[in-house]
Amino acid sequence: MRITFCCTDTQAELWLAGLREALPRACVEPWVSGAAQADYAVVWAPPQSFLDEQHDLKVIFNIGAGVDALMKLKLPLNAKVVRLDDAGMSVQMAEFVCHAVTRHFRELGDYEADMAQRIWSYRQPRSRSSFPVGVMGLGVLGERVAKALASFEFPVNGWSRSAKAIEGVQCFSGPAQLDMFLAATRILVCLLPLTPYTKDIMRRDTLARLQPGGYVINVARGAHLVDNDLLSLIDDGHLSGATLDVFRTEPLPQDHPFWQHPKITVTPHTSARTIRDESIAQIVGKIDALERGEAIAGIVEPGRGY
Amino acid sequence: MRITFCCTDTQAELWLAGLREALPRACVEPWVSGAAQADYAVVWAPPQSFLDEQHDLKVIFNIGAGVDALMKLKLPLNAKVVRLDDAGMSVQMAEFVCHAVTRHFRELGDYEADMAQRIWSYRQPRSRSSFPVGVMGLGVLGERVAKALASFEFPVNGWSRSAKAIEGVQCFSGPAQLDMFLAATRILVCLLPLTPYTKDIMRRDTLARLQPGGYVINVARGAHLVDNDLLSLIDDGHLSGATLDVFRTEPLPQDHPFWQHPKITVTPHTSARTIRDESIAQIVGKIDALERGEAIAGIVEPGRGY
Repeated sequence: MRITFCCTDTQAELWLAGLREALPRACVEPWVSGAAQADYAVVWAPPQSFLDEQHDLKVIFNIGAGVDALMKLKLPLNAKVVRLDDAGMSVQMAEFVCHAVTRHFRELGDYEADMAQRIWSYRQPRSRSSFPVGVMGLGVLGERVAKALASFEFPVNGWSRSAKAIEGVQCFSGPAQLDMFLAATRILVCLLPLTPYTKDIMRRDTLARLQPGGYVINVARGAHLVDNDLLSLIDDGHLSGATLDVFRTEPLPQDHPFWQHPKITVTPHTSARTIRDESIAQIVGKIDALERGEAIAGIVEPGRGY
Repeated sequence: MRITFCCTDTQAELWLAGLREALPRACVEPWVSGAAQADYAVVWAPPQSFLDEQHDLKVIFNIGAGVDALMKLKLPLNAKVVRLDDAGMSVQMAEFVCHAVTRHFRELGDYEADMAQRIWSYRQPRSRSSFPVGVMGLGVLGERVAKALASFEFPVNGWSRSAKAIEGVQCFSGPAQLDMFLAATRILVCLLPLTPYTKDIMRRDTLARLQPGGYVINVARGAHLVDNDLLSLIDDGHLSGATLDVFRTEPLPQDHPFWQHPKITVTPHTSARTIRDESIAQIVGKIDALERGEAIAGIVEPGRGY
């Protein structure tokens, strides 16, 4: 079995060593142009030329949860794309989103800012029943986040393409129920896959439907959000702020208004990092299953885009 | 039935209105010197003169989880002291502590500080197995906090006076196991009641037993911590920092070194506020039970102090 590795921005040596150790009978090599045809590929943001040359690939493993960058490329005819199911990312996403929700709801950033000026301040406690949270996207990550928020006794809504049932979460689905979901939500968390349908889904007309004082947490992809629409709804006072971990261009361009906006907290796409060891174990488990002729989870449906 | 109300720093009118509405046949009055003897008292930080005059009290309800201030006073001979069990405080404590743990573990304060300077930074993800959290005090609040931390997949230790068993938590108990508990802990969360035994429990010799890079979160009482010992262990580099919500003197004195210390986050005793409506409902439920001759939870044992 031949496995080709083509990942930008990763510690390639550690990935190669991990894959080789777990699959001692496989030939695992970093891709170079002109290399022999491989059966499996492990990729992150590969060039089109990689996919053009490796036309015999059976399965392409994407080492992240979002496959939007890969799905824009022309793929080998018979290759299936497989995304990571979880691999340690859902717990990171849950704690990151709970941190952002708590920080906003409990006004902890404001308290810390007061304390930095030696001001011992008091704010009237808020009622969590007035801060319903809505999670858009109820895949592995979204479901985990929704359940974590429900454990902190927030009213939690969920919205997904197809109908879901999650204990403790009021679930909405499909385009027909999007407005109802938004109207029932004050803190909006985006965990959708990026597809042609979900691109720009957070724009003026949708964000305006959030409850007054609405707050946006984007931990999916920058292209889900129309930046200027968020900014103008904050300026209008309809939205109270945002925590943004992902951006249309990353790193965030130096002249972007999100930097240093007093009501926007930005982080450098760090909400859920790929954990190498857990990812390798998951990829190896799936290769073993495929070699035994078994079904695996996480195969991307091309028509759906995730 | 006569109920006297003696609370400093509260919105007395709202408490009185709530108690009167819930107990329409009771006489609920704010205490003034010379008032008639009451059966029940609802108090927060009452003066000794209140307790001296109200010598017929059967039960004193403390509108907070910590009764240390009250237990320092001379109480009426037959009065039982009852603390709030939870009344909406445990969820606040869980989210506050999880926020502090996440912020430290995920280095979110550092990322935000970089972003404030338009620096898009990267830090190697840390392994949560290297950040065992230890919760001292496993009452209603401590147990909830320990379980919330376990749900985020941290290794969680607990330490309490008497032995406890909590799923997902490695429990230690009593003075004999304190050192073992500390040695197994990197992030220490204090949720102990303040008693003569627990006063100064976080001092040089105990904090020095935490794992290197230890971090302290104090959400109990300021007197649990010896301030200068924390500062010198941070200066030595053995501890990496602290989040402190409670202080030996509150508000924190203007010249205290905790203000603006680069490795210490301070908040103004806001980790778990008493929620009026839930507290009133709990007190009323307990009065009803007592009037029916039933047992109630939350009675303080004088010899134990909580």
